[in-house]
Amino acid sequence: MKKVVCIGGGNAMPNVVLPCIKKEKIDLSVISATLDSGGSSFRLREDFNIIAVGDLRRAFLELSLLENKKVLDYRFERGDLKGHHLLNLVIASILMKDENPIDVLNDFFKTQFKVFPATLDNVSLCAELENGEIIKGETNIDIPKHNSRIKRVFLDKKANIFKEAYEKLLTADAIIIGPGDLYSSLIQVLLVSRVKEAIKKSKAKVIYICNLKNKKGETDGFKVHNFADEIEKYLDRKLDFVIYNNQKGFDLVLYNEYNDPKYIGLPLLKENKAIHNSEKLIKKIMELII
Amino acid sequence: MKKVVCIGGGNAMPNVVLPCIKKEKIDLSVISATLDSGGSSFRLREDFNIIAVGDLRRAFLELSLLENKKVLDYRFERGDLKGHHLLNLVIASILMKDENPIDVLNDFFKTQFKVFPATLDNVSLCAELENGEIIKGETNIDIPKHNSRIKRVFLDKKANIFKEAYEKLLTADAIIIGPGDLYSSLIQVLLVSRVKEAIKKSKAKVIYICNLKNKKGETDGFKVHNFADEIEKYLDRKLDFVIYNNQKGFDLVLYNEYNDPKYIGLPLLKENKAIHNSEKLIKKIMELII
Repeated sequence: MKKVVCIGGGNAMPNVVLPCIKKEKIDLSVISATLDSGGSSFRLREDFNIIAVGDLRRAFLELSLLENKKVLDYRFERGDLKGHHLLNLVIASILMKDENPIDVLNDFFKTQFKVFPATLDNVSLCAELENGEIIKGETNIDIPKHNSRIKRVFLDKKANIFKEAYEKLLTADAIIIGPGDLYSSLIQVLLVSRVKEAIKKSKAKVIYICNLKNKKGETDGFKVHNFADEIEKYLDRKLDFVIYNNQKGFDLVLYNEYNDPKYIGLPLLKENKAIHNSEKLIKKIMELII
Repeated sequence: MKKVVCIGGGNAMPNVVLPCIKKEKIDLSVISATLDSGGSSFRLREDFNIIAVGDLRRAFLELSLLENKKVLDYRFERGDLKGHHLLNLVIASILMKDENPIDVLNDFFKTQFKVFPATLDNVSLCAELENGEIIKGETNIDIPKHNSRIKRVFLDKKANIFKEAYEKLLTADAIIIGPGDLYSSLIQVLLVSRVKEAIKKSKAKVIYICNLKNKKGETDGFKVHNFADEIEKYLDRKLDFVIYNNQKGFDLVLYNEYNDPKYIGLPLLKENKAIHNSEKLIKKIMELII
C-alpha cells in the first residue's frame, strides 16, 4: 500500500484533501502546522508553553472515528472562555500532561490515519519584509498589518521535527503539500529542522496543490509558478508535480502556459465557485501516485 | 430488579456509595446536586446561566464506561483557564448547546447507570441563620464566614425537578440519601420542587447514610439523630433507615442509644480512619433493600 503524507494546516488541507483521500486504499499520515499565533491557540500557547492546537484539531476531527465527536466540536461564545474551542482545550490538556501526547491524542480521537505535529517545540514564525521590517507571529503574517511584500520567512528558534513525522516523510511514496496559505500554513512546516532533509532523502513524489486565490500580504499578484518556486526554495529540491486550477474568473490565481510537464492544470472549481473540487483533485493525485 | 436511586453531591456520595453499589444487581440511578457556587462551577454558572457541573462530573466519571476517561480528568493550573476542570467545560458546553443535554451527557460518558441533575434551573441555595442573617450561595454555606447556626435553608427561586429524576424517585424501591454535607449537598436536592412529593408518593424505602464527621458552620455538635431529624424535616416524611458509624474516636459524630429500630449503628470506619468502609456499608444497604 502506498505511503502518503499530507502536509498543511488551516482549513484548506483538512477540508479539501483529507475528506476524499481518506477513502483511498493508501497508508495515510498527516503532518500538521503548529505555529498559529492567533485566537484560542495563541492564548493556550502563551499560558501553557505548547504548540498551537487549532490546526491539529481540524486534522484530528477530520480523521477521527470517535463516536459523538460532534458533541465536542464547540467554540465558547461568552465569558472568560470566549473564543476557546472545546477541543483545543482537550488537546492542550493532553499536550501538557501526557508523556506521549501524540499517541494519546491519536488514541483519544480514534484516528483512522495518524496525525502528527511537525514539531512539539513552541517557536514563532517570523517574516522579513522587503522594506527590512521583521514581523513575528504567524497571525501577523496571516492577517497582515504591513504593506510590504514578504522577502523570507524563518523561525525565531530551532524547532525539532517530531520523530514520527520524520519517519513518515523519510519512507513516504508521496508527499502532498497544500493547499493552504503559502507561508503561514505550508512553509512554516518546511522550516522545522530536518523536514527538508527527510523529504530530500525520501523517494517520494512531492506534489504541491496550488491555492485558488491569492492572499493579501502573503501572495499578492502571485501566479501558479511563483507559489511553486517559493515552495521549491524552502524545500531545496524540485517539486514533482504542481496541480493548479486552470479555470478563470473571479480573482483566481493566474498561470502561464507552462512547458514543464510537472505543471498539471485542471478545471478544479466546484460548482463554479472558488472552492476546490476535492473528488477531481484526489482522482488526479491518485493517478500520479499509483 | 430493584430500582435504587442515590441522592447526593460533592465527593462523599460519588466516592463512598457509587463505586460499590454499581457492582450490585440493581437498576441504579443517580440524582445529583446542582447548586455548587464555588470555583470552576460558579464561573461557568455565571457566564453561561447553567447549573453547577462539578457534582454532576463526579457522578458521571464514576459511572462512565468511556475508554480514556482518565485523559479528560484534568484541572487546568495556569492562565485564564486556571481552576477549570476540563470535564466541567465539556459538560457546560453540552448543557448550553444540546437540546436534550442529559441524554447527550449520559451517552457521551457511556454511563453504565444514568445520572440526572435534580434540576436544570440555575437557582441559588440560601440559608437563614439563627441571628437572622440571610446568606446566599452554596459555597457560603459550605465554607462559612459566619459564626451563627443555620436555622433553615431555601432556594432563591423555584427550581423545577428534572423530569426523569421525578420518574426515578416515584418508581424507586429504595432511595439512598448521602453521605454528604447536610445542607450543601443533600438538603439542596430535597428543596427542588416536587422532589419531596415524588419521594412521598413512592413506595421506596428511604435510607439515610449519616456523615462520619461534623462540619463547621453546617452541623457543629450534631449527633446522628440531629442529622436524621433535619433530613426528615425537609423530606416531610420519616426515614426508613438511618445508617451510622458506631465506632468512636477522633472528632467523629456522636450518637445516643437509640431505641428506634430505624437507627442502624455499625462499625463503619475503614482502617480506623475517618473514611467510610464502602463494602460494609453497601452490604448492609443491600440487606435492607432486598
